[in-house]
Amino acid sequence: MSQSLSRAILAELNKLPLIDPHSHINPHAPASKTLADILGYHYFTELAHSAGLPKARIEEAGIAPKDQVARLVPMLADFENTVQYSWLIDLCRKFFDFESDSITPANWEKLYDRALEVLGQPDWEEQVLKRSGLEAVFLTNDFDDPLTGFDTHRYVPCLRTDDLVFRMTNAEVRRRLAAATNVEFDNPAEMEHALGVLFGHFTRHGARACAISLPPDFEPAPVSATVAGRLFATIRSESELPAEDGRLLSQFVFWKLAERCAEFGLPFDLMIGVNRRVYEAGVYQGQDLFDGRSSLIQYRRLFNAFPKVIFPISVLAHGLNQELVSYSWIFPNVATNGHWWYSNTPAYIELDCRSRLTAVPQTKQIGYYSDMYKLEFGLPKFSMYRQVLAGVLAEDFVIGRNWTEEKAVRLGRLVLRDNVERIFPSRPAARGNTR
Amino acid sequence: MSQSLSRAILAELNKLPLIDPHSHINPHAPASKTLADILGYHYFTELAHSAGLPKARIEEAGIAPKDQVARLVPMLADFENTVQYSWLIDLCRKFFDFESDSITPANWEKLYDRALEVLGQPDWEEQVLKRSGLEAVFLTNDFDDPLTGFDTHRYVPCLRTDDLVFRMTNAEVRRRLAAATNVEFDNPAEMEHALGVLFGHFTRHGARACAISLPPDFEPAPVSATVAGRLFATIRSESELPAEDGRLLSQFVFWKLAERCAEFGLPFDLMIGVNRRVYEAGVYQGQDLFDGRSSLIQYRRLFNAFPKVIFPISVLAHGLNQELVSYSWIFPNVATNGHWWYSNTPAYIELDCRSRLTAVPQTKQIGYYSDMYKLEFGLPKFSMYRQVLAGVLAEDFVIGRNWTEEKAVRLGRLVLRDNVERIFPSRPAARGNTR
Amino acid sequence: MSQSLSRAILAELNKLPLIDPHSHINPHAPASKTLADILGYHYFTELAHSAGLPKARIEEAGIAPKDQVARLVPMLADFENTVQYSWLIDLCRKFFDFESDSITPANWEKLYDRALEVLGQPDWEEQVLKRSGLEAVFLTNDFDDPLTGFDTHRYVPCLRTDDLVFRMTNAEVRRRLAAATNVEFDNPAEMEHALGVLFGHFTRHGARACAISLPPDFEPAPVSATVAGRLFATIRSESELPAEDGRLLSQFVFWKLAERCAEFGLPFDLMIGVNRRVYEAGVYQGQDLFDGRSSLIQYRRLFNAFPKVIFPISVLAHGLNQELVSYSWIFPNVATNGHWWYSNTPAYIELDCRSRLTAVPQTKQIGYYSDMYKLEFGLPKFSMYRQVLAGVLAEDFVIGRNWTEEKAVRLGRLVLRDNVERIFPSRPAARGNTR
Repeated sequence: MSQSLSRAILAELNKLPLIDPHSHINPHAPASKTLADILGYHYFTELAHSAGLPKARIEEAGIAPKDQVARLVPMLADFENTVQYSWLIDLCRKFFDFESDSITPANWEKLYDRALEVLGQPDWEEQVLKRSGLEAVFLTNDFDDPLTGFDTHRYVPCLRTDDLVFRMTNAEVRRRLAAATNVEFDNPAEMEHALGVLFGHFTRHGARACAISLPPDFEPAPVSATVAGRLFATIRSESELPAEDGRLLSQFVFWKLAERCAEFGLPFDLMIGVNRRVYEAGVYQGQDLFDGRSSLIQYRRLFNAFPKVIFPISVLAHGLNQELVSYSWIFPNVATNGHWWYSNTPAYIELDCRSRLTAVPQTKQIGYYSDMYKLEFGLPKFSMYRQVLAGVLAEDFVIGRNWTEEKAVRLGRLVLRDNVERIFPSRPAARGNTR
Repeated sequence: MSQSLSRAILAELNKLPLIDPHSHINPHAPASKTLADILGYHYFTELAHSAGLPKARIEEAGIAPKDQVARLVPMLADFENTVQYSWLIDLCRKFFDFESDSITPANWEKLYDRALEVLGQPDWEEQVLKRSGLEAVFLTNDFDDPLTGFDTHRYVPCLRTDDLVFRMTNAEVRRRLAAATNVEFDNPAEMEHALGVLFGHFTRHGARACAISLPPDFEPAPVSATVAGRLFATIRSESELPAEDGRLLSQFVFWKLAERCAEFGLPFDLMIGVNRRVYEAGVYQGQDLFDGRSSLIQYRRLFNAFPKVIFPISVLAHGLNQELVSYSWIFPNVATNGHWWYSNTPAYIELDCRSRLTAVPQTKQIGYYSDMYKLEFGLPKFSMYRQVLAGVLAEDFVIGRNWTEEKAVRLGRLVLRDNVERIFPSRPAARGNTR
Repeated sequence: MSQSLSRAILAELNKLPLIDPHSHINPHAPASKTLADILGYHYFTELAHSAGLPKARIEEAGIAPKDQVARLVPMLADFENTVQYSWLIDLCRKFFDFESDSITPANWEKLYDRALEVLGQPDWEEQVLKRSGLEAVFLTNDFDDPLTGFDTHRYVPCLRTDDLVFRMTNAEVRRRLAAATNVEFDNPAEMEHALGVLFGHFTRHGARACAISLPPDFEPAPVSATVAGRLFATIRSESELPAEDGRLLSQFVFWKLAERCAEFGLPFDLMIGVNRRVYEAGVYQGQDLFDGRSSLIQYRRLFNAFPKVIFPISVLAHGLNQELVSYSWIFPNVATNGHWWYSNTPAYIELDCRSRLTAVPQTKQIGYYSDMYKLEFGLPKFSMYRQVLAGVLAEDFVIGRNWTEEKAVRLGRLVLRDNVERIFPSRPAARGNTR
């Protein structure tokens, strides 16, 4: 009963048009051109490397796309068990008429050629969006992105702020900020002004979120103007700050971003828990890991200080999900957001989804985002999530709590679609920088 | 097969009369008077607030019960997905002849009136206990509770000691202790004497546990009389201690309580992991959260020092459950106790229940307590637990290990009922304070 | 469907001959002699003690085996719910023609006598290996084990190094190392030489792993020769080092072991997370627990520094499993290894197994090891694991991902058997110590 019920719910969820609230799509080149763009996704290069393929073979400079695929294909068998591999097969079957369950040295060339054909169609971008049910996709924009040359209703700008918070000591980052805002800054007040200009630019271009990824030990806190002044005085002359001062500078910039979020009515999307460059010899984007010893208690001052800013939160460590559930249940301004990276496998999604759906107000949960770099991954990734979601709705709600199937589907619709619009509303009151 | 089996086991478990080993029932007003007492439970006010209802609307001074309910009802739809909401519907259907699955602006007034009628019956307290299968309910008594005016066999006193351990610097707390014990104390030895008088008072009135909730970073340790003497000398003149001294004072009082538990044969019920007032603008009782970074290793000295004191332990963080399982499997004096607060949802209960039932001696596990403030919640909360328990017994024992259904039900009976009497025996040897 | 499918997969997995990659078997007395050897397994003595049997009753000096069993039997009912008890019943039924589901005061003597008969057969060791499907069993050898007098193809030596890393301050440990290697050492360079001799000895005798168990706070790091020289100078005269120096000495020896593993091509088996002697009054081997607050980030320098050393990793805390999954997915030299001790119960195995099978290359996962002290436990422990594995293969792969049953069984074969040979290859290039 549970399986047929789950399938029936899944069929309904599959009909919903989606807004993907977080991706790394390049709006100027959103779709793949060859199978190398697809197999080059870091999930596959890192698993191939983990299984034994040297980084130098994967990332050889100037290698032709087809040669790169030829090198990766023989490794696929070693990780055909992974859910990431199942995304690959799923999309090849759906988009490239692939009929096998495995990509092998014997069949890959035909697939490569067929993919080339499909991806080369002039309207492929339209097709893939349509066939994936994607109406809009949120981006991850550098702070100095001009945000021009693309449809910001389809590709929704989001201001990514890692560089501002963690690399403000870097002269090039400061130069980019000055150039992007036309604000030469030399002290905290001027930098605040620059941030305001930035938020004005982003919100005028339809940005619906400010976003950042944070290391496990980060703890937001206000930093006084005096201390900040001293820090800026130092970085004018030195490129490096002592560790403790570096931490203070990050806290200062972060807090000022939160103030701008309040001012401009933007949600502040926090992706908590990544340690960068843990495996320094790893492939591109396959070097980051985490330390599970983190807690949302580190964010108590932030959540208390900005009651009007919504903080959609992703946690990298599954072990933090219960805190996320609890903080979202208590704080009106905290919402649950998707299943991030190392927590984005069905075993963890299922537990996290169950615990959120049964304890956090249904209006405060964003079920899923793709985190994709190329549009073709929206379909298999959302498909994986919907399968888990349908199972939880069937088991915990229809069977466990005697809900009707319709009511369960409505809950699915909320977390899959409606809450994206509720939590990241479009057209926030357009406001200039009032400073 | 699994589902029908689970239902059959559940039917048997439903027949067991219960002793609820932890609640916040006021024995002088144990049952609700109006639906406002029920909807005023912090689970509902905090979820309504989390979903957007301002605290000032919820907690307006002097608001009439019916008006308070009228304000909360429109918010219910936002958290109808939560298991807490299902408690509400369950009890309204069982007790108030409510026939819908939702409480809405259209149907609440009729429900309110019917509840008023039911709750107003002179024998309602008897009825609700009987219909909930509750024979006795443990209380949470302030240390200066006179413990008179109620039936201590039905409402079993438990000495709650948070104030003593964490607020001894507060002159009012010291005054209350002196008043309750008739012991003026000015130094550690006199305070120990006062504690002895307190334990005498509680055990003479049938207390079956000493209890406390503890923050995640608490680490019990003995504190020397010299150090304690210095601390008492300080608090005679100052109302605040430096943080480190405050910690020492808490450790000192806690250790002395453990000594009294040993002396008086009382279990020491530890509820580990709560951070108080994390969300300071939250509704009443909806301000506390936690930090998952805690470990039972912090209790190693305590468990080793008091082999004769039973420590029934609740952990707020699901992540600590494996430690609880392991410490209970190794230490004879550690027992597992219920599913506390943020871990009290089916997703966590199921995992915790499974891991405990398959690794800790069956005689050392207390399955569940209600933690309720009003008697009406015993039924839906125990009902939720029994449903999970029946599923685990069916899956892991009858199917997974070929147990008979009868044997599985006996295990259920142990954790639901018999172990409460085993671990919190009634009539502990009544002993005076021998100091 | 899921249950019959799971049974079909299990039937296939049951046919695979096993190599057990970690045990504590004594190759000179691998099998039990009496039921006391079986009931004396620490899992049973610690659960009996936890349930109330005094340590002095369990460990009375000179007690006859039958008397010891007589004391333990009445306690069994208190932990008949545990999976450990199910191992006991399983093996008694399989090996000793036991027909009941419980060992009781009424039936144990007959069982005792029958066990005596069975275990006393001259070819019992052969029988138990054959009936358990065990082709080879890895050992845990003291560093000064002569490794003679047994068949090292059947009982595979592994160099256990806890004493070297954590007790080098102990003069007796140093004397043993000098005696075993014929290298008198007085300084770091000489000790390194001794380690090389040791690795030569072990690899010449077919060792397939270097192994160690580590406390939760251990963090491998290189230590300079100068610092190491100072530490050795100190321990020549003092038996105790200050805590910080003790930590440095452990780091120094550990790092040198990792260098030898690289030199001799041995995997370095890390068992992460145990705190020793937490319950000091506990029964033999029933004193150790853990602190879940640990992270594989502590091993980042190690994993980066030794890309050619394979690190099969076991974690004691279930909460660390997601890190293990993630680090194995990223680092080519990190592999997942079994389900250790407090994580070795079905509730945790299932979650850990699911998350590993769906995210780590299938070639990098060792499904299970017995950790047993006597051969009779191989059968019930592997049987427990296979049952969980078959369920995950059925649910997540055949049902969830439309795999054929054959393909699922092949994945099972990899993690149960083939990867042991791949990750711990026999006959590593035999090399002398080149120093």
